[in-house]
Amino acid sequence: MSTFSIAIHGGAGTILRSSMTPELQQQYEQGLQAAIDKGYAILETGGSAVDAVEAAVSSLEDFPLFNAGRGSVFNNKGGHEMDAAIMDGRTLEAGAVAGISHVKNPVQVCRAVMENSGHVMLAGAGADEFAKTQGFEQMSDDYYYTEQRYKQWQEAMKEGVVQLDHTDKESKKFGTVGAVALDKDGNLAAATSTGGLTNKKFGRIGDSPIPGAGTYANNDTCAISCTGVGELFIRRVVAYDISCLMEYKGLSLREACDIVVQDKLVKIGGEGGLVALDKHGNIEMAFNSEGMYRACKSSDGRSEVLIYR
Amino acid sequence: MSTFSIAIHGGAGTILRSSMTPELQQQYEQGLQAAIDKGYAILETGGSAVDAVEAAVSSLEDFPLFNAGRGSVFNNKGGHEMDAAIMDGRTLEAGAVAGISHVKNPVQVCRAVMENSGHVMLAGAGADEFAKTQGFEQMSDDYYYTEQRYKQWQEAMKEGVVQLDHTDKESKKFGTVGAVALDKDGNLAAATSTGGLTNKKFGRIGDSPIPGAGTYANNDTCAISCTGVGELFIRRVVAYDISCLMEYKGLSLREACDIVVQDKLVKIGGEGGLVALDKHGNIEMAFNSEGMYRACKSSDGRSEVLIYR
Repeated sequence: MSTFSIAIHGGAGTILRSSMTPELQQQYEQGLQAAIDKGYAILETGGSAVDAVEAAVSSLEDFPLFNAGRGSVFNNKGGHEMDAAIMDGRTLEAGAVAGISHVKNPVQVCRAVMENSGHVMLAGAGADEFAKTQGFEQMSDDYYYTEQRYKQWQEAMKEGVVQLDHTDKESKKFGTVGAVALDKDGNLAAATSTGGLTNKKFGRIGDSPIPGAGTYANNDTCAISCTGVGELFIRRVVAYDISCLMEYKGLSLREACDIVVQDKLVKIGGEGGLVALDKHGNIEMAFNSEGMYRACKSSDGRSEVLIYR
Repeated sequence: MSTFSIAIHGGAGTILRSSMTPELQQQYEQGLQAAIDKGYAILETGGSAVDAVEAAVSSLEDFPLFNAGRGSVFNNKGGHEMDAAIMDGRTLEAGAVAGISHVKNPVQVCRAVMENSGHVMLAGAGADEFAKTQGFEQMSDDYYYTEQRYKQWQEAMKEGVVQLDHTDKESKKFGTVGAVALDKDGNLAAATSTGGLTNKKFGRIGDSPIPGAGTYANNDTCAISCTGVGELFIRRVVAYDISCLMEYKGLSLREACDIVVQDKLVKIGGEGGLVALDKHGNIEMAFNSEGMYRACKSSDGRSEVLIYR
C-alpha cells in the first residue's frame, strides 16, 4: 500500500518558553493533535488530500488560540480580515480568498472558489458575497472575539504599530495555520489560512492566499504551506520556488526546503517556516524561527506534535 | 555602453482584423508608441528601469482604449476595480494593489506601496485609503467612463456573463497593460496594470497584481509582464516559472518563454502572452493568441510597434 501522510502548522516565530505555561502548551498540543487526527482519519479511509487539508485547516480555524478563523486577530478598524488558499496538486486548481470577514471557515470558502467560481482569488466584501451565494453562514463579529486578541489589538493601537500576532512584547509569532497532505492515490494538496496582522491597515494581503507564495501543491513535486513574514514570502515566491528547485534542479524536498528556508529567506530577514510533503510521503517541517507549532502523521508510523526546535 | 531596452504590451487575445479599422489601428499604435517613447526617454537619460516601467504603464493607463486606468472596464456594480503591480529586479522589492477604484494611475500607487507601506499588496477600499494618505488624487467614476466600455458592460449584463474586455462577440481580448525595462546600470523592472474583467463579481483578482504570477523582475534572470486568462497564469505561476527555468535549468529567455507560453499554457487553455527582457537586453514578446498589442525599443536599434503575428 502507498504511504499517506499529513503535516500541519499553527504558525512560527519567537515562542518564548518563559511566557508558555504547561497548561497553555497542553492546549496548543491538543489543538494540533485534534487537527492532525481529523486530516489523517480522512486519508486513512481513502479520502482525498484536498479533503484532508480542508478538514485539518478547518479544525485549526475553529481553535481560538491560532490566528485564523475564530482566533483571527483584530484589524485596525476592530474587524477581522482573513486570507486563505487551497490548492489541488492533481489538477493544479486553486481557490483563495483575501480580506474575507464573516465566514467561520475561510478554507472551506476557498474550496468553493476553486470548484464553483470559475476564478482563483476573490477579495473583500465580494468574497463574503460569494460565500453567501454558496450557502456559507455569515458569522457576527462576536464569533471572532477572544479576550487575548482584543488585548493585543488595544496594545498595538496604543503603540501605533502593525503587529504580527504578538502575545507580548518579547515574543513574535506569525499567526497562520496550514496543512499539506498526500493521499493513498498519490495526490498532494495544500491549504493555508490566517487572520493576518494585528491592527493591520489598508487591506494588506500576505502570502497565505497567494498560490505559489504561501500555498502550493503539484503532484509532480510537492505540497507546501508557509508561515512567516508574508511580504518576504511573496517577493521570494517561496512555495513555488521549492517546487522549481525539485523539478528543474533535481533537488530532494529536504534540500529544496533547506536552501529556501535556511539560506534564501534568512539572507533577507524572512523569518518563518513551512510544512512540506513530496509524492513519496517525505515530510519536512522547516523553520528558521525559534519555534513553529507543528504536527505530522504518516502511514509509515511517524507521528509528532512539536512546538520548539 | 551597456544595452538598455524596454518592451510593453496593451493586452493579448483574438484581435479580429475584421473589426479593426485603419483609424482604430492607428490610435492603438499611437498609444503604444507614446508609452514606449516615454519609457525609453527615461532609460536614455540614465533613469532607472523602475522609473521607465512606471512611466510607460502610466501612459498606457491614461490611454482610454486599453483596459487599465482610465480605460478600465465596468465591474458588475457599474464601478471599476483595478489591479496592478510593480517589481524592482535589483532588490526584489514589489508593490501591488488589487481592487483599487479611485486613482488615476494604479501603477504609481504600487510604487508607493513598494516604497512607503512596509507591505507588498494592498486591496480594496484599504488600497484607496492608502493612496489618499500618499497624496494621490481621488478620481470620480466619470473619469473612467467611456462609451465603448459602458456598452460592453451593458451587453455583458444582458448575457449574464463575465467577460474579458470584449469588443464584440467574436473577439476575445485580455485587457491588461504592462512594461519591462533594462536600464543602463543593468537593473531590470516590471509593471502590469488592468481593469480586469467586464462585469466581474465578487472582488475577483487576476494574475496582474501578483508578484510571480503576472509580474516579476529579478536582475539575475529576467523581467516579465503577462496578459491572458489570469486564473491559469496564477495557477502556473507564469512569470516566476520563466525566471526559474532560466536560473535552475540554464535556459535562455527565449527558450523559457517558448516552453511556458507555447507549451505549458497552451496545454491548459491558457490563452495570452507576455513581454520579457533578460539582463543582456534580449527582448521577447511571446503570445499564443491571435494578437497582442505590443512594442519594444532598444539601444541596439530595435524598434517595433505591432498588433498581429
